[in-house]
Amino acid sequence: MLSQATQRPADGKLAVLMPGLGAVATTFIAGVHAIQRGETAPIGSLALTGRMPGSETLIHDATSLASLDDLVFGGWDIYEGSCYDAAKRANVLRESDLERAREELSKITPMAAVFEQEYVRNISGPNVKSAPTKAELAEQLVADIRGFMADNGCDRAVGVWCASTERFVVPSEVHLSIEAFEKGLREDHPAISPSMIYTYAFIKAGVPLANGAPNLACDVPALVMLAKREGVALAGKDFKTGQTLMKTLLAPGFAARLIGVRGWYSTNILGNTDGAVLDDPGSFRTKEQSKLSVLESILDAETHPELYGNLDHKVRIDYYPPRGDNKEGWDNIDIFGWLGYPMQIKINFLCRDSILAAPLVLDLALFLDLAQRSGSGGVQEWLSFYFKSPQTDGEVIPTHDLFAQLDILHDRLEELAVQAMAPAAE
Amino acid sequence: MLSQATQRPADGKLAVLMPGLGAVATTFIAGVHAIQRGETAPIGSLALTGRMPGSETLIHDATSLASLDDLVFGGWDIYEGSCYDAAKRANVLRESDLERAREELSKITPMAAVFEQEYVRNISGPNVKSAPTKAELAEQLVADIRGFMADNGCDRAVGVWCASTERFVVPSEVHLSIEAFEKGLREDHPAISPSMIYTYAFIKAGVPLANGAPNLACDVPALVMLAKREGVALAGKDFKTGQTLMKTLLAPGFAARLIGVRGWYSTNILGNTDGAVLDDPGSFRTKEQSKLSVLESILDAETHPELYGNLDHKVRIDYYPPRGDNKEGWDNIDIFGWLGYPMQIKINFLCRDSILAAPLVLDLALFLDLAQRSGSGGVQEWLSFYFKSPQTDGEVIPTHDLFAQLDILHDRLEELAVQAMAPAAE
Amino acid sequence: MLSQATQRPADGKLAVLMPGLGAVATTFIAGVHAIQRGETAPIGSLALTGRMPGSETLIHDATSLASLDDLVFGGWDIYEGSCYDAAKRANVLRESDLERAREELSKITPMAAVFEQEYVRNISGPNVKSAPTKAELAEQLVADIRGFMADNGCDRAVGVWCASTERFVVPSEVHLSIEAFEKGLREDHPAISPSMIYTYAFIKAGVPLANGAPNLACDVPALVMLAKREGVALAGKDFKTGQTLMKTLLAPGFAARLIGVRGWYSTNILGNTDGAVLDDPGSFRTKEQSKLSVLESILDAETHPELYGNLDHKVRIDYYPPRGDNKEGWDNIDIFGWLGYPMQIKINFLCRDSILAAPLVLDLALFLDLAQRSGSGGVQEWLSFYFKSPQTDGEVIPTHDLFAQLDILHDRLEELAVQAMAPAAE
Amino acid sequence: MLSQATQRPADGKLAVLMPGLGAVATTFIAGVHAIQRGETAPIGSLALTGRMPGSETLIHDATSLASLDDLVFGGWDIYEGSCYDAAKRANVLRESDLERAREELSKITPMAAVFEQEYVRNISGPNVKSAPTKAELAEQLVADIRGFMADNGCDRAVGVWCASTERFVVPSEVHLSIEAFEKGLREDHPAISPSMIYTYAFIKAGVPLANGAPNLACDVPALVMLAKREGVALAGKDFKTGQTLMKTLLAPGFAARLIGVRGWYSTNILGNTDGAVLDDPGSFRTKEQSKLSVLESILDAETHPELYGNLDHKVRIDYYPPRGDNKEGWDNIDIFGWLGYPMQIKINFLCRDSILAAPLVLDLALFLDLAQRSGSGGVQEWLSFYFKSPQTDGEVIPTHDLFAQLDILHDRLEELAVQAMAPAAE
Repeated sequence: MLSQATQRPADGKLAVLMPGLGAVATTFIAGVHAIQRGETAPIGSLALTGRMPGSETLIHDATSLASLDDLVFGGWDIYEGSCYDAAKRANVLRESDLERAREELSKITPMAAVFEQEYVRNISGPNVKSAPTKAELAEQLVADIRGFMADNGCDRAVGVWCASTERFVVPSEVHLSIEAFEKGLREDHPAISPSMIYTYAFIKAGVPLANGAPNLACDVPALVMLAKREGVALAGKDFKTGQTLMKTLLAPGFAARLIGVRGWYSTNILGNTDGAVLDDPGSFRTKEQSKLSVLESILDAETHPELYGNLDHKVRIDYYPPRGDNKEGWDNIDIFGWLGYPMQIKINFLCRDSILAAPLVLDLALFLDLAQRSGSGGVQEWLSFYFKSPQTDGEVIPTHDLFAQLDILHDRLEELAVQAMAPAAE
Repeated sequence: MLSQATQRPADGKLAVLMPGLGAVATTFIAGVHAIQRGETAPIGSLALTGRMPGSETLIHDATSLASLDDLVFGGWDIYEGSCYDAAKRANVLRESDLERAREELSKITPMAAVFEQEYVRNISGPNVKSAPTKAELAEQLVADIRGFMADNGCDRAVGVWCASTERFVVPSEVHLSIEAFEKGLREDHPAISPSMIYTYAFIKAGVPLANGAPNLACDVPALVMLAKREGVALAGKDFKTGQTLMKTLLAPGFAARLIGVRGWYSTNILGNTDGAVLDDPGSFRTKEQSKLSVLESILDAETHPELYGNLDHKVRIDYYPPRGDNKEGWDNIDIFGWLGYPMQIKINFLCRDSILAAPLVLDLALFLDLAQRSGSGGVQEWLSFYFKSPQTDGEVIPTHDLFAQLDILHDRLEELAVQAMAPAAE
Repeated sequence: MLSQATQRPADGKLAVLMPGLGAVATTFIAGVHAIQRGETAPIGSLALTGRMPGSETLIHDATSLASLDDLVFGGWDIYEGSCYDAAKRANVLRESDLERAREELSKITPMAAVFEQEYVRNISGPNVKSAPTKAELAEQLVADIRGFMADNGCDRAVGVWCASTERFVVPSEVHLSIEAFEKGLREDHPAISPSMIYTYAFIKAGVPLANGAPNLACDVPALVMLAKREGVALAGKDFKTGQTLMKTLLAPGFAARLIGVRGWYSTNILGNTDGAVLDDPGSFRTKEQSKLSVLESILDAETHPELYGNLDHKVRIDYYPPRGDNKEGWDNIDIFGWLGYPMQIKINFLCRDSILAAPLVLDLALFLDLAQRSGSGGVQEWLSFYFKSPQTDGEVIPTHDLFAQLDILHDRLEELAVQAMAPAAE
Repeated sequence: MLSQATQRPADGKLAVLMPGLGAVATTFIAGVHAIQRGETAPIGSLALTGRMPGSETLIHDATSLASLDDLVFGGWDIYEGSCYDAAKRANVLRESDLERAREELSKITPMAAVFEQEYVRNISGPNVKSAPTKAELAEQLVADIRGFMADNGCDRAVGVWCASTERFVVPSEVHLSIEAFEKGLREDHPAISPSMIYTYAFIKAGVPLANGAPNLACDVPALVMLAKREGVALAGKDFKTGQTLMKTLLAPGFAARLIGVRGWYSTNILGNTDGAVLDDPGSFRTKEQSKLSVLESILDAETHPELYGNLDHKVRIDYYPPRGDNKEGWDNIDIFGWLGYPMQIKINFLCRDSILAAPLVLDLALFLDLAQRSGSGGVQEWLSFYFKSPQTDGEVIPTHDLFAQLDILHDRLEELAVQAMAPAAE
């Protein structure tokens, strides 16, 4: 249910601020410019090419989304050098696409990042903030956000976390209340990770944020409560791309046909920075948790113990440099049917992580901005379509079924479309 | 919308009559007995283990389906020998499962089949009817159905075509009206295939029929009109198993995420009788048409020409004896995302045709009987969930999306559940 | 055994003349220039990077091969435009590699081809010779060869067929003797294909020729006899790349371990001109014959009927435009071991046809020139290592085992190395 | 070079004693009986069905191998119950094959095993020897061997290690000399593993032994020296089956064609006891070392740094219960060719570990017995064909190329065949 607040129009410029200006962020930015130049369609973007449910009307026309021409891109990174340098290093774009985007990417230079080696072991860089306490780091980030908006004449901003996966953290006392968290910031509590500091800063700056990585961040209770109190929209977590996307496509089909599943073995090989980061067991554990959770809610072992009660689910991620950014998954699925007879499905997905993630960044930026303008603070469950570990406000069990998630997205878009047409209160 | 006729209860015995007592039919029969003996769950059967939408109530409890204990199995085949012999030849069941089913399968001997070599080139058998005209063959089948019901004390019957795929037939004059068709029967028109003669006979006997093969049969206009006039339920066509099932699982996901598809190459290897039959180009063409049609309606090239307007879709079926009944599919899917960058998905499905088809036979038998008892004659579009080429009554464009099909199935089951609870009119 | 003739030294320029200046030829030429510029190693070339058996000496140093700097490239094609245009159309090279090769490729323009639509159905082009008889076409080709050598100051020449696969031809009377063949040329006999006219012309010009395609050409008796009489070296046929290369790698291993093989199913998808040509059943049949033959000689059913006596071998080639030049193979191999228990191997080869073929063109050009300078006319069986259907002089059964072929190649190279060191007779 | 000692004939019964009477051993025994009953050929056995090189003569006829009828089977295991129980638990054999072997398998009961939990973490069983020191355990094993031979009227014996993989052990002081080792036995040194105790006992009993697992055993210097001194034949280690077999088939082909290899990623899933054992990191490390070593010697980075100098080789083994004994491997191989352009090969091997290993047990038993009768003590390098980590006597670098290994095997068989024909010295 939407609050009765009217929807502010999408006038003026919108800053899209990304912690992590690496492969995903630069591919996203280069693509937006290519779309603006008419060189490509916004492939994979529901916001720009999707239709309202049961209708020929574009979502973009039915709701009041920001125009691509109003987007201004910025962010933080531990590496120096422009986004052109970062894109070149990432080696996602073809030479000719990279050159066409050169001018636009060269203009963007990352602000100094909040970074802690303890949370991301296998990379390091020079472009890092320092301050006596985490509270002051947060203040610096708030100042960065406000400064960027002022410098670029932006009326609004939105954030999308595109940085590396942090190590696995078990939520503890310091994460449970706003007070404890703010005390922790001031006292430099070790359990407050950089991504939590970013989230805190975004909320304090009144800017909505989506978390594209699996680490604990937007989803600690303290920050969820703070976002609700401040009326700031949050969404998370972990972009649903690659192998997990395939899982949430396939598993609903097995469930629909009541086909049994005895085992699901998944291995991933990837050679980009993400792979290097996940080669650290701490970061891997964070990712593994996110990837393992998706089957349970779709293949319901309680209702169908005979089909899903004995399911061995294994997920492997291996850093394999020859693959570069072209993440590859191999799945072996052991299913069974009539009389319990076994069958096997093998899926080899030669995917490109950044190519699959980029349109999600775009949609999340546009939809989060819409949510914020509609007065809808707190966790945006309706955006679960985009995430491996959909964040809910704690009472609802998250849905992983891609088609159920799409229904939820569609329902909310219909409400937002109605709201968009409502006369302004004043 | 259901007709106002009340639903007759599922009392008494129900004959399940199958043209084609080969791998699929015998696996189905053996499985039903194993379920009755409590050795296995009815895996893959929505009718017996599925739930009403959004509810914990079993479909079986909410609607008035026939009990397994009331089913009596029979059918026709060109081969002599009992279903035990046929099951042994089919080599689907494990030795121990075959032996456990021996007694039940040995009791069932096929009635002589209506068969024409011209329609199925690569097999032949001795157990075949002969008669001066196709009209008389149809009369013999009607007599078979009635005789079987009388001999076995059955109140009702239902038919499921489990026989081989016939050659490709272009619908012509003789198929367009009831009169032309009946004249054709009397004059032995070559364009009237055995499967059409069976369909005609089932309708004349007042017995509903599902078509598990892709050949033109239940779906010629003359027979659709006849079924409507006589109030007999029909459903078709081509069991949705294996590779095509996977397609209709995956394609809706690509469409949901607006991922482009540039090509889809599918090859199948199979070594059973079905494979031998499809090694004949005429039968293959029938199957190919059925398999090729599924993508178009899901990946909508009109709404999204930039995503699906240039899709190369190829389907191959190869007879490869080493595979036996274990049909195997290999799919290569060329998708593309952001900036048009290509990715690839390869799927290797080591499936078992008869294992996937058997629960469909069960569900179709139970649901068609329910439809018939509910006074619902003509084409049962709500059973499209089970078919590669869903038959509609001609005005509706068939849906191939597995999840959309499930919604339709669920909607009708809710209506039928309501009807089941209604007090009888008298 | 080598003839006693001494080996002429590799002095002066060597024309490398290719019927078919398409994907393979242009990739080969661009690569040679990149090697000369020091940008890449000659990957895949035994001639340039291989070692003499059991030694650290390079084959190149032990034998007297032509220097890359002495090669001059030319050829014939049905398309007009330079090799730069052809390479661009072929879409094998990366943009940057293509641009680096631009100058060199732009200089080469194809001579008008001998072409007959009847032999290659699915392509056509404007750059085609015409003449009253096939004999006169052959004379034009001889004049082309001599003219090219004179214009470019070449002392020697060598030919490598890099053009499309012609339709399947059954050898007939006209192919059996030199007289019949020459009479056929004069009388425009329809069973004399363009590739045979080229072969005839090369032999008459005293220039050795290798056949990279599977069609009947160098291997008709008339041309074999002619080559022997004229002392011209021939080698063929059908470059061993991709799936067949994998087969001749794997099968010797199965044979070594005495593992049984029950079936081998191979499918190929490719989208280049080669694919379009093979979409014609006549050309496919030629290719299929070549591909099917390789297993029999390695998996010896006579010695081991229990292992290889019941082997189903199927080969499919499908034209699938999304794949472009990146030919892809999928193999399913059904093996069996102890107690006859079955196992399966699936191989998915994402290969690049022209990348695999280019170093073979180089090696064949260098080795054929060496053979010719060594006085070794007729069929060069020792080059079977490079071919799917190794041509022999008729008495020897061809070897397909890659490792046996390598032994033969090594043995001859040792003889040629000895000969290279021998003092000149004069 | 063979010693001048004459070859003792293969008269009398031969005990085949296996530490580990599990899946491999019982499959081997059942198969030998099936061969004797004429139900199957000895598939995969070079000893019984292979030919002498370049000849039609069977190896079996050219050399003096023991007859199958003279073999008597026995061994040790930590589980109680007969080999029939073990085979049933292993679930390798089909029901009917198991039943046919019931009588023979039921007769064989394992002797109590030497076992130490520290070396194999994930399994345990009741049938275990205890003694105050490892020296006394060794004495018990010698007594077992002699007792078995006496009870069964055997003239000779041979051992094949078919038990689980022990944890990774770094060779230390205690393994370096016979004296240190024997002292270690008496003092219960923790670095002396059960497999070393078995090896010591076999040598002391004068019985040759092959090691089918990757753990350090036959190959510690102390035992190699002892075997040499006592004139007892040893061979090891780690049966070459499955994925590694495929590697040593494929890699020689890449090397032959000078195709570059940039990466090789291998994952294995298996669900049998072997998998459970390897789920322990210590045992996995042992196996990983064995699996990783094979590429280096075949893909020679010193001679060809441009092709093999930058090769990322990863090996994964995952315990995945749904797979049972049907071990499955997935390999991704990143190769490159002309101009450095990349290509990919994916191999999915659905193999059966015990089916591939059983004929190796047979060959090793027969060939080791032959070696022993020929007076050839110490490490049998000529049997490297059968092992992932071929054991050499320390001076020779082991060969992994399957075809080079076959040449070595053939050469020695020719020597042994000559020796077999020599008149006895006396």
